[in-house]
Amino acid sequence: MTFEVTILGSNAAVPAFGRHPSAQILNVNEQLYLIDCGEGTQIRMNDHNIRRHRINQIFISHLHGDHIFGLIGLLTSYSLGQRTEQIDIFGPAGLQEFLEVQIKISQSHLTYPLNVHTVDPTQATLIFSDRNLTVTTIPLDHRIPACGYLFREKKRLLNVIPEKLIEYGIDFKQINEIKKGGKGTNAKGEAFDNASLTLPPYIPRSFAYCSDTAYKPDIIPLIKEIDLLYHEATFSEDKTENAIATKHSTAKEAAMIAKAAEVENLLIGHFSSRYHDLNILLHEAKSVFSNTQLAIEGITFPVKIRRSI
Amino acid sequence: MTFEVTILGSNAAVPAFGRHPSAQILNVNEQLYLIDCGEGTQIRMNDHNIRRHRINQIFISHLHGDHIFGLIGLLTSYSLGQRTEQIDIFGPAGLQEFLEVQIKISQSHLTYPLNVHTVDPTQATLIFSDRNLTVTTIPLDHRIPACGYLFREKKRLLNVIPEKLIEYGIDFKQINEIKKGGKGTNAKGEAFDNASLTLPPYIPRSFAYCSDTAYKPDIIPLIKEIDLLYHEATFSEDKTENAIATKHSTAKEAAMIAKAAEVENLLIGHFSSRYHDLNILLHEAKSVFSNTQLAIEGITFPVKIRRSI
Repeated sequence: MTFEVTILGSNAAVPAFGRHPSAQILNVNEQLYLIDCGEGTQIRMNDHNIRRHRINQIFISHLHGDHIFGLIGLLTSYSLGQRTEQIDIFGPAGLQEFLEVQIKISQSHLTYPLNVHTVDPTQATLIFSDRNLTVTTIPLDHRIPACGYLFREKKRLLNVIPEKLIEYGIDFKQINEIKKGGKGTNAKGEAFDNASLTLPPYIPRSFAYCSDTAYKPDIIPLIKEIDLLYHEATFSEDKTENAIATKHSTAKEAAMIAKAAEVENLLIGHFSSRYHDLNILLHEAKSVFSNTQLAIEGITFPVKIRRSI
Repeated sequence: MTFEVTILGSNAAVPAFGRHPSAQILNVNEQLYLIDCGEGTQIRMNDHNIRRHRINQIFISHLHGDHIFGLIGLLTSYSLGQRTEQIDIFGPAGLQEFLEVQIKISQSHLTYPLNVHTVDPTQATLIFSDRNLTVTTIPLDHRIPACGYLFREKKRLLNVIPEKLIEYGIDFKQINEIKKGGKGTNAKGEAFDNASLTLPPYIPRSFAYCSDTAYKPDIIPLIKEIDLLYHEATFSEDKTENAIATKHSTAKEAAMIAKAAEVENLLIGHFSSRYHDLNILLHEAKSVFSNTQLAIEGITFPVKIRRSI
């Protein structure tokens, strides 16, 4: 089953050096979830062959322009493509008015239901759940209300060992019950313990998106031991004053969060336009947390399955 | 003196085949004028090395999304670059509310004065004038209020012939007066007719932007004998029904307008996403008006000086 993140934009504030404002696609089992939507996101989707019709949910971290100015273009393009499937957008208060006025003035007519859900960015709340995953907000600390999102796969079923069913003569029609933890019974009426027929399920995979935010250790318990953390790293450590003034993080701070939360991997992004070469940010983060990568646009980061012990 | 048009976007409705929504830059004497501003225009400016700080005026044809969704990103990026120079935007009613709400919700703070001027798209009106040019609206026929813009260089001064001043012993301090039509006088008090000292000025150059619009012969007198006409050509002739239904033009209709108006050159654009290969549109237009070119993105079309007879 797919669980991977594709970066569509990872620059801060303004486009620069061929980098674009924030947008990411989380692909879980071929269902796509869009996270933030800076200007030109729909164009990046074309560039990177994203099957945009597979997006039904959009998660917005905060209402600064470099995270939302691409929404109206995407939403109206869906209509020009005669989309009929509902779209749900989650984000802080204000999104509804923001979109309604743009739709009204541009005399756009949506061909599908659009539901805007206002989230409370001040506390961790389960805001969405479908057959693939749950989504929980992560309160962040920025100049305006902002939250991250924790995406966690639904708990998986047990893995049935087919060879055992054959060995014991258990009809495969029982497979769904066994996956859920039930016993197996063969034609002779002999019952077999679930443990003898299955392997443990893999640990549900998890991804957290934390941008934009000042260094905020409060989030550590919320993202403890997750598989992949995207944390903004707008500045390098020598620009700590800028980071504090603008409520952004340094690459070192992003890595400190990753280390303290004992995550598997860290992606850093939301790069300031002052950095043409991003290696300063990468090296700084890796000196604290070695499993760090740059969130380079167009790159897909798959999350590996970890077997439970 | 420069007078040239650079295409930043010439696709209709949605981005496709690497083509982007409408935007153009008119460069007159190194002052830049932006015409329409589809999503991603600021990114196209980066791609094509447009010196965006030289833009002080923006002209919007109508409020459909593919002509305006890039405005907010550009305007807020100017602020992030600490711009202080005023910007004037001209367009149909609604632009002010459209921009105000986006600025408010994204909590953007403009660092420069922004003046939105509502134009009446139903009648040809002089709406702007500076040292380089005048701008007049061109009423168009679209599904919502829409107008084109006619950009015409200011009348040029006479061209002084330096050799004649030397020959007659006329002090060069008189050059500005002679350029304006005055006589020249030498140290002996001899006066020389202006006609003997000057050549006629070149004909002021002109460019008209006509998009989006149904076929509308009423505009012909307004653009008579101009140097360069950009006219939308969303469809080919076999899609005339679509053109009528959506109030767009075919390539043939664009060429018919150019021919009847006796313009020097025609640029066609606002291509429907149904056309990957644009040659069908080019050939159709050229069969009616041979001086036709496709408005390909990234290409700059200079307007040549025509000497008056």
